Amino acid sequence: MTGDLSAHPTVVVDTLRATTTIVAILANGGEGVLPVAEMEQALAMRARFPEALVGGERNNRKPKGFDAGNSPREFPPERVRGRRVILTTTNGTQAIARCQSAPWLAAGALVNATAVGLALWEQGGDALVVCAGGRGYPALEDVLAAGAVVELWPRAAWGDGARIAAAVWHQARDRLLDTVREAVHARELETMHLVEDVIWAAQKDYCPVVPIRRRDGWFQLG
Amino acid sequence: MTGDLSAHPTVVVDTLRATTTIVAILANGGEGVLPVAEMEQALAMRARFPEALVGGERNNRKPKGFDAGNSPREFPPERVRGRRVILTTTNGTQAIARCQSAPWLAAGALVNATAVGLALWEQGGDALVVCAGGRGYPALEDVLAAGAVVELWPRAAWGDGARIAAAVWHQARDRLLDTVREAVHARELETMHLVEDVIWAAQKDYCPVVPIRRRDGWFQLG
Repeated sequence: MTGDLSAHPTVVVDTLRATTTIVAILANGGEGVLPVAEMEQALAMRARFPEALVGGERNNRKPKGFDAGNSPREFPPERVRGRRVILTTTNGTQAIARCQSAPWLAAGALVNATAVGLALWEQGGDALVVCAGGRGYPALEDVLAAGAVVELWPRAAWGDGARIAAAVWHQARDRLLDTVREAVHARELETMHLVEDVIWAAQKDYCPVVPIRRRDGWFQLG
Repeated sequence: MTGDLSAHPTVVVDTLRATTTIVAILANGGEGVLPVAEMEQALAMRARFPEALVGGERNNRKPKGFDAGNSPREFPPERVRGRRVILTTTNGTQAIARCQSAPWLAAGALVNATAVGLALWEQGGDALVVCAGGRGYPALEDVLAAGAVVELWPRAAWGDGARIAAAVWHQARDRLLDTVREAVHARELETMHLVEDVIWAAQKDYCPVVPIRRRDGWFQLG
């Protein structure tokens, strides 16, 4: 899918790692996260918010001049409490940018799947879970997390995408970490010695908070 | 995904109903099927092949001036043996058109899943299964069939898409017809009294043939 995706209440999922990291930052006491699509935007926003941390990645690595990469482990409470974070990543923040017209937009991942799924359900209407994927293809760890997001919804409310995701989640739930580690992106991160991020991202419901986009584009806890 | 999809050996899947119908036509002795994206193209091709049947649908219904709709049951052996069929549908023939640069292109569905899966595997290289879906979203019955197509491949050859599809197939296989009937498109067809088409399309490996696109665009048995 292309263009502007959504006139629906929407949860964007990028399990490895953007939305997992957004959840981690806010669960750890960060004041807000601003996802931006381009590196130049991130650096331009730093001029407006000089006290903010600038984090993100290209090709899974921290760009030059950034304060942090895109690992949830780089944003512990002692670093982020009360601070703003500007974040730009290869897939996740682009997917968020493509949902800008959503009337309600939240960041979802395995670590907050149940909480964000119930919050989306409460929005009613024709809710959408957008999987960021990578290189134009669906990513296993995103579809898996989307299945965990919709798991508690009544089956009758599931469209085809939810049924697909729920089947993937159902098959994976009893061997969750092993399944996430089979995903292409997880294997890439492992070769870059980032397996701890994969393990972190696979902790279902570890951070039961709901990052919601405010009118100014910043995500804060709902 | 948009644009021209594929420089890969490719199977296009539109379980309800285009690729199921292509398989049915050729299994029943049809000489060839030409999928075209637009209705005008279909009628223009009839001028070149006046003996051909012109079939297809818009909004699940047979267009005016067409010989047949898009039901596999409309192409029995006594009607299609030795004949050509020109076919245009809402999603499936569009998906085929978007794979025109594939070096090897076949039509897949539940009714030929094992046969077409093995034929694709024999092509080697970076094989792709393209799910036609509908209205820009994935369709349950296509992802399900894609899972059946890749089922016999070594797991190590599965990318994320194959793992997603295989999980959906695995969960559905013991209640296949019930699962297909839960799909949005199946429910639409049922409301149009086309439930027999849904039942037909859910017969796994009922027609173990492989429709392959020739250089001139016609699909024939491999």
